[in-house]
Amino acid sequence: MKYGARNRITGKVKSVKKGDVMSLVKFDVTPPAEMASVLTTESLESLDLKVGDKVELIVKAIHVLPVKE
Amino acid sequence: MKYGARNRITGKVKSVKKGDVMSLVKFDVTPPAEMASVLTTESLESLDLKVGDKVELIVKAIHVLPVKE
Amino acid sequence: MKYGARNRITGKVKSVKKGDVMSLVKFDVTPPAEMASVLTTESLESLDLKVGDKVELIVKAIHVLPVKE
Amino acid sequence: MKYGARNRITGKVKSVKKGDVMSLVKFDVTPPAEMASVLTTESLESLDLKVGDKVELIVKAIHVLPVKE
Amino acid sequence: MKYGARNRITGKVKSVKKGDVMSLVKFDVTPPAEMASVLTTESLESLDLKVGDKVELIVKAIHVLPVKE
Amino acid sequence: MKYGARNRITGKVKSVKKGDVMSLVKFDVTPPAEMASVLTTESLESLDLKVGDKVELIVKAIHVLPVKE
Repeated sequence: MKYGARNRITGKVKSVKKGDVMSLVKFDVTPPAEMASVLTTESLESLDLKVGDKVELIVKAIHVLPVKE
Repeated sequence: MKYGARNRITGKVKSVKKGDVMSLVKFDVTPPAEMASVLTTESLESLDLKVGDKVELIVKAIHVLPVKE
Repeated sequence: MKYGARNRITGKVKSVKKGDVMSLVKFDVTPPAEMASVLTTESLESLDLKVGDKVELIVKAIHVLPVKE
Repeated sequence: MKYGARNRITGKVKSVKKGDVMSLVKFDVTPPAEMASVLTTESLESLDLKVGDKVELIVKAIHVLPVKE
Repeated sequence: MKYGARNRITGKVKSVKKGDVMSLVKFDVTPPAEMASVLTTESLESLDLKVGDKVELIVKAIHVLPVKE
Repeated sequence: MKYGARNRITGKVKSVKKGDVMSLVKFDVTPPAEMASVLTTESLESLDLKVGDKVELIVKAIHVLPVKE
């Protein structure tokens, strides 16, 4: 599988918070760090994400905002 | 500084490719990994990003797409 | 603080509607006008936004859609 | 015309920088302020944006990132 | 009406799921297919979307992710 | 492969316009219609998109803007 996106991170589902329309999922990524995704609760259910599941996190480069002090 | 975004990653500028309107910047993030950002060339210049600069990469959770095999 | 984004607007928190997963915040911006942001309720809480708080609203230029009659 | 977006700002085209694939347009918005949009050069041409044109700038609330000191 | 976006699809509202802050709307698009949009419940109400309403779905090209096996 | 996104459209590459940093790809989708994607030229090259290639186009529901007359 090849994606039209520059950022591809492997993680494990750490927690799932299911809301009415939107849901929030947290992922353990190495090194001990965490990333979060918001998706529709429908997508969550069709992905059938459970704690411990291995996923890839895809982020288009246009959505990465660099900030510098 | 506090951001209304769940994902905040520290990285170092690894390379800068300046285009006419848009530019592509790559970052070293730990562990040996890489992330990429696309921003306007104007923003690049006003940030004055140079190889080795330390930045924070902010990503709203809504822009993280989980994919599962 | 420098941001890799072209749009940076100063506003004051006008109202906060906290949802289960996502929250909606409205801002007074000058001139008498209003902008809105949706963020995770977690981000809202970590920002600790209260009515009257001064914030900056960052929008990447790629997310601005021009419409012309 | 009604839009599924919370932010709708009226502006005038101030400058157009046409790139190979992407273009950058700046807008005067009141009060003396400026906003920027990046769009494909094709969209720019089909909009036929010229300096002084009046446009509406639509931004979904999810794309507004609040930052607080 | 002209939009600064490459993708413009005509559809009919098929279902509306109204959440506390965010809402999910599904559209019938031709050929027998379906698209989905998430927007704030406020936007949903100001659009006054009802099943059967004809709408246009606007998507900026930057938000389309191509995937290839 | 399962995606955390509600919109998944099958298409064929119709044209590729490679820019310095960003590239624009057009797709034939059924019925005789067209969709467009902008991605980094690097992603384009790593996807190795050629006219006639079959791809899936993934769009998160949050990026679909409904407009109603």
